[in-house]
Amino acid sequence: MADQAADRATQEALDGFYGDLKANDLAPLWPISDELMPAAPTPATLPYLWRWKMLRRLAERAGELITIERGGDRRVLSLANPGLGGAPYASSTLWGAAQYLGPRESAPGHRHTPAAIRFVVEGDGVWTTVNGDACDMHSGDLILTPSMHWHDHSNPTDHAMIWFDGLDLPTMKALDAIFFEPYQPDELQPVAGHNLSERLWGGRATLPRDHGHDRPSSPLLVYRWIDADRSLEALLAERGGPLVTLEYTNPLTGGPALPTMACEMHRIVPGGLTRPYRKVGSSVCVVYRGAGHSVIDGQRFDWSHGDMFVVPSWSTVEHEASEPSDLFAISDRPILEALHVFRDEWLDAPQDVTATFEAKEPQTQDSVA
Amino acid sequence: MADQAADRATQEALDGFYGDLKANDLAPLWPISDELMPAAPTPATLPYLWRWKMLRRLAERAGELITIERGGDRRVLSLANPGLGGAPYASSTLWGAAQYLGPRESAPGHRHTPAAIRFVVEGDGVWTTVNGDACDMHSGDLILTPSMHWHDHSNPTDHAMIWFDGLDLPTMKALDAIFFEPYQPDELQPVAGHNLSERLWGGRATLPRDHGHDRPSSPLLVYRWIDADRSLEALLAERGGPLVTLEYTNPLTGGPALPTMACEMHRIVPGGLTRPYRKVGSSVCVVYRGAGHSVIDGQRFDWSHGDMFVVPSWSTVEHEASEPSDLFAISDRPILEALHVFRDEWLDAPQDVTATFEAKEPQTQDSVA
Amino acid sequence: MADQAADRATQEALDGFYGDLKANDLAPLWPISDELMPAAPTPATLPYLWRWKMLRRLAERAGELITIERGGDRRVLSLANPGLGGAPYASSTLWGAAQYLGPRESAPGHRHTPAAIRFVVEGDGVWTTVNGDACDMHSGDLILTPSMHWHDHSNPTDHAMIWFDGLDLPTMKALDAIFFEPYQPDELQPVAGHNLSERLWGGRATLPRDHGHDRPSSPLLVYRWIDADRSLEALLAERGGPLVTLEYTNPLTGGPALPTMACEMHRIVPGGLTRPYRKVGSSVCVVYRGAGHSVIDGQRFDWSHGDMFVVPSWSTVEHEASEPSDLFAISDRPILEALHVFRDEWLDAPQDVTATFEAKEPQTQDSVA
Amino acid sequence: MADQAADRATQEALDGFYGDLKANDLAPLWPISDELMPAAPTPATLPYLWRWKMLRRLAERAGELITIERGGDRRVLSLANPGLGGAPYASSTLWGAAQYLGPRESAPGHRHTPAAIRFVVEGDGVWTTVNGDACDMHSGDLILTPSMHWHDHSNPTDHAMIWFDGLDLPTMKALDAIFFEPYQPDELQPVAGHNLSERLWGGRATLPRDHGHDRPSSPLLVYRWIDADRSLEALLAERGGPLVTLEYTNPLTGGPALPTMACEMHRIVPGGLTRPYRKVGSSVCVVYRGAGHSVIDGQRFDWSHGDMFVVPSWSTVEHEASEPSDLFAISDRPILEALHVFRDEWLDAPQDVTATFEAKEPQTQDSVA
Repeated sequence: MADQAADRATQEALDGFYGDLKANDLAPLWPISDELMPAAPTPATLPYLWRWKMLRRLAERAGELITIERGGDRRVLSLANPGLGGAPYASSTLWGAAQYLGPRESAPGHRHTPAAIRFVVEGDGVWTTVNGDACDMHSGDLILTPSMHWHDHSNPTDHAMIWFDGLDLPTMKALDAIFFEPYQPDELQPVAGHNLSERLWGGRATLPRDHGHDRPSSPLLVYRWIDADRSLEALLAERGGPLVTLEYTNPLTGGPALPTMACEMHRIVPGGLTRPYRKVGSSVCVVYRGAGHSVIDGQRFDWSHGDMFVVPSWSTVEHEASEPSDLFAISDRPILEALHVFRDEWLDAPQDVTATFEAKEPQTQDSVA
Repeated sequence: MADQAADRATQEALDGFYGDLKANDLAPLWPISDELMPAAPTPATLPYLWRWKMLRRLAERAGELITIERGGDRRVLSLANPGLGGAPYASSTLWGAAQYLGPRESAPGHRHTPAAIRFVVEGDGVWTTVNGDACDMHSGDLILTPSMHWHDHSNPTDHAMIWFDGLDLPTMKALDAIFFEPYQPDELQPVAGHNLSERLWGGRATLPRDHGHDRPSSPLLVYRWIDADRSLEALLAERGGPLVTLEYTNPLTGGPALPTMACEMHRIVPGGLTRPYRKVGSSVCVVYRGAGHSVIDGQRFDWSHGDMFVVPSWSTVEHEASEPSDLFAISDRPILEALHVFRDEWLDAPQDVTATFEAKEPQTQDSVA
Repeated sequence: MADQAADRATQEALDGFYGDLKANDLAPLWPISDELMPAAPTPATLPYLWRWKMLRRLAERAGELITIERGGDRRVLSLANPGLGGAPYASSTLWGAAQYLGPRESAPGHRHTPAAIRFVVEGDGVWTTVNGDACDMHSGDLILTPSMHWHDHSNPTDHAMIWFDGLDLPTMKALDAIFFEPYQPDELQPVAGHNLSERLWGGRATLPRDHGHDRPSSPLLVYRWIDADRSLEALLAERGGPLVTLEYTNPLTGGPALPTMACEMHRIVPGGLTRPYRKVGSSVCVVYRGAGHSVIDGQRFDWSHGDMFVVPSWSTVEHEASEPSDLFAISDRPILEALHVFRDEWLDAPQDVTATFEAKEPQTQDSVA
Repeated sequence: MADQAADRATQEALDGFYGDLKANDLAPLWPISDELMPAAPTPATLPYLWRWKMLRRLAERAGELITIERGGDRRVLSLANPGLGGAPYASSTLWGAAQYLGPRESAPGHRHTPAAIRFVVEGDGVWTTVNGDACDMHSGDLILTPSMHWHDHSNPTDHAMIWFDGLDLPTMKALDAIFFEPYQPDELQPVAGHNLSERLWGGRATLPRDHGHDRPSSPLLVYRWIDADRSLEALLAERGGPLVTLEYTNPLTGGPALPTMACEMHRIVPGGLTRPYRKVGSSVCVVYRGAGHSVIDGQRFDWSHGDMFVVPSWSTVEHEASEPSDLFAISDRPILEALHVFRDEWLDAPQDVTATFEAKEPQTQDSVA
């Protein structure tokens, strides 16, 4: 009886104490320390996949329903990872999206601290003007719009074009570091020329002397598929399959093309699973070519051309191609490396596949029908 | 009538479309682009202040009510910024807290990827053992526990001690980069000696040759108040007041002591407002000595010894000391600099003061009474 | 009289003193301080030029008279700047030479700390094997043999080949830093393949991920003329003439291909003198294409294909092409930059031409006749 | 007979060929390749030692015989290594000297690209003004005069002072990179204050924020003996004897105090030979305290306070102290590291002592007598 009374008194004292903490904008560490400091990363980001067929169909519907002027400067459908509570982010650190630009349309100029890349899943004809340099976009090309570079998109053709947008926006948001400016007073920048950066900075390990360019982000704004393809072929010949990886770099530093976002192309050839791998930091992958599947934390994701999928931080991933495949990927690795908290490892045993991901295709088909 | 019907049909099509987007885990950019990309940072973090008197009183109650074993490895009261929806974070990127260690107590060893610092607001007698080096803690000292360094705290004295804990934890969480390990099997590391790093790395611009130490975080684990005080005095003599700032550095690089968190001491002397300043990234300030006030985004915060306050990203701040004052501060600047998105500016005109912050002292007093 | 005696006594004391200094291996600074510390560099290196016609003829005679085995591993004629007292150096810091390899010959493998480059003035068919990678040499190509890389040359063809050798040897000698090892026991390294580095590292701003290569010297060992030519053309289109300069870089760093020697190609188009320029450090230029003249410290040097000439440190130089011309050049700039003593300047007024250089062609012709 | 005739003809052809090469300023590599590229460094620099007693005596005679105005700006006796053919250099890359400044004298201001250090062997009272900052010189202190910093010396006392000068001058000369300017029109710079850099930059791993200082050379211009002594004591306690080494660093980088010259202090305690060691690059050592001997390439050099000796590149050296000893040393290591050609090694077996160095003391004594 006495014990019960003592327990009750203790509990009341504790309740009063926790109430006072809360009232004073304090939080006790001890009840939440496991959650705050887990043994290994416990990302809210889920492994997830979006089908290209669905993305394209919905992007086309956006093209019909939404004018560019309707709001926003862009007709962009962002991948909203279901683990992130409705945030329009592909992962906790990365933005991924499909952008649609209709025939004869243009998307007005602006600039912002978040860095962006465009990867062309299919089609061509559009150019992205970056600080006055009109970068023509062809299938398989990578276009950079580094932090605080003016950029707009122009489609002079009779057909629409859809491409992949990748940004470091969630990280810049988490760091409260976002600045944005619309280009004014015109909608579009004047074009000084087409593919100027490619001509000036696109040499093979040669650079203009006395260029005076800043080093953090690449002065080369466009990376062509034909060059990536050749380098991947050579790399595969040199190292053998089933997986080789190429990184797009800043020719001034040999480091990542952007200081906040790595751009890579993985070539995977049929012939077995790639070795299981995990790393700190997330990736968004875009299937440029081929078909196959990936296993992410035990869940199987089948993919083919245009599909986009997310690998969360510290998730184990392995791939297997049923056809020769090329996976474009962005990741936050440069950030983690700059902060000296990157780690990765290759594992020995393949994962057990415990589930298979089913994409939500039917719903779209129904609603269109 | 026809128009209304058309409008209705359009709205239905739009509703259907937005529904399909949501059902397919996509989010349209255009309705949210202003919020996603504001003209300048719009941090959720609020300018805020916690009184030392209140912190100490509640820390002491924690000492009475909560044993170290009760859960968690630490008796820590974290500053929970009211703008952050209940998260135990001082700002969106920084952790700030008061830690209490009772007489003859010790807090068990562990290590984690988030880097931490301890700043001693008052008292002495405790040591923090970092990778076997027992760092004695005196008033005004700064102690580092860099990423993945084992650390525990020991209080061999008859009195309790409270100090300030600062961590980059929110950023590491946002990056899904947290790893944690308890020290095992003993609670505490064996102590190889006291203040070893101070003896070995605490020279004036001299270093052991062939030290073989990694460069990212400082091998010097303790910075003494007496040294900071002398350097601040010299700096003030050289540059004049009302404000001079000293940075604690990694002697191997001359850069910040930790790659993810800057540690600074501001000396402010009476004689007028400091020049208004704003920077990308937040700071947590701990008043070590003196009294005065700061104006943050038009709101006045009066402070004296031990008070802790937060300056959000891009908030304009100016200080005025009524007595000679020293403000210790941590910030996320090294992260923003590493990612090349840091910017700051000194403004010309002092801010209009539109509000005065009232701290929540009474509630605590009542509950104690 | 007394004065004279005093003067004599003083002189005797001085003489005795100077004798004692010398006997004790000391030197007084005051009589030589102007020479030791001139207002600006006073290089012993002279501006100088060697004609390709002469170099080729003498290299061919070396081919007839000297077998590879006769001594030395190479049939190399080094440019011996007449200002350097007989030393076999093109300038005080750079080695320049013509190397001759006869039909079906090979030059045995070795490696050394001095870094070397080969620039192909004309011809093809030879390969240089560098750490097992056989680099095919074509006209206009640049081949690297970085510090401590095994290298040998093989000529499987029926014709001889002559190329330019450039080394940092004089600097390495001045620093007492030369190490040398012959390849053993075979004369030549096994060839793992041809142009492997080109395939693996010759991308346009792409690199293999996780390459694990050291950064100081370029992993790309061969730079093709066709690529340099295209980049020079683009650079000229972008910037206009009469002079544009391309630097061969290390794709891992964006810095010079070798940490001790810059490799550049200057494209000069007819249309007037280039702006007078001077820099700390010397250069050796090889005329790859075209014809024209340079003025170096007031002396005119006419040049055409294959001629080699030296620009000493801090000598003012300007060029004028009579035909579209390409000048390959090596320099010690990376050394001076690494030591933070590089400086250069563009001057306004063209130099007065006070002399014209006459090359020593006849002597060779006579001796051959 | 026919063979002899053929041999003779061959020899004549060769002689003619070599003559033609010489006449055309070319040198054949093959006869000299072993000398040019030895298996390991073959420095002309000899291991050598100068006695302090002799240096001081001759410096005092210079004080009597040579006025500061007599020529040169300095009364400097440079160590002229007998291996260097009369050049006033301590080693092929380093200048070492004793500088004498009489009572009430001053040495006029100038600046130059070669970087210099002063190490105070004994005495005090003089200050060296560096860019307006009067650095007081005490026994055991190190004073920097980095590249292109104005410097002059002032002796306000009644006694003369002698100290050690160390410069990278031979290397700057080899690189044809020397610029020199006298300070004008006054002899001496105005003094802004005494020991300003010490106050501002002499913290323990703290730096002024926003200092805006260039990084190549240290902003801290004076390093006190008392600090070096304490750090050496701690280092010895931590690591044990018989040898510990401290490097004077640039607090902005953690690298060497000067980009071209390392400054180190070796503490050697009695108790046996230090482990044999060799490195690329030479050193000049100044015995600050104690007595003992060193073995350099098998030759024994006995030393005591004030003696100066040279260790050539790649010479094996070991030390043994008969009393607790401190050896100050300068070396060219930062240059070799910047060029990525530094290498060093610790050897296992002590050297055989095959000779003992005899310094040339008597000659001076005689001439003075």
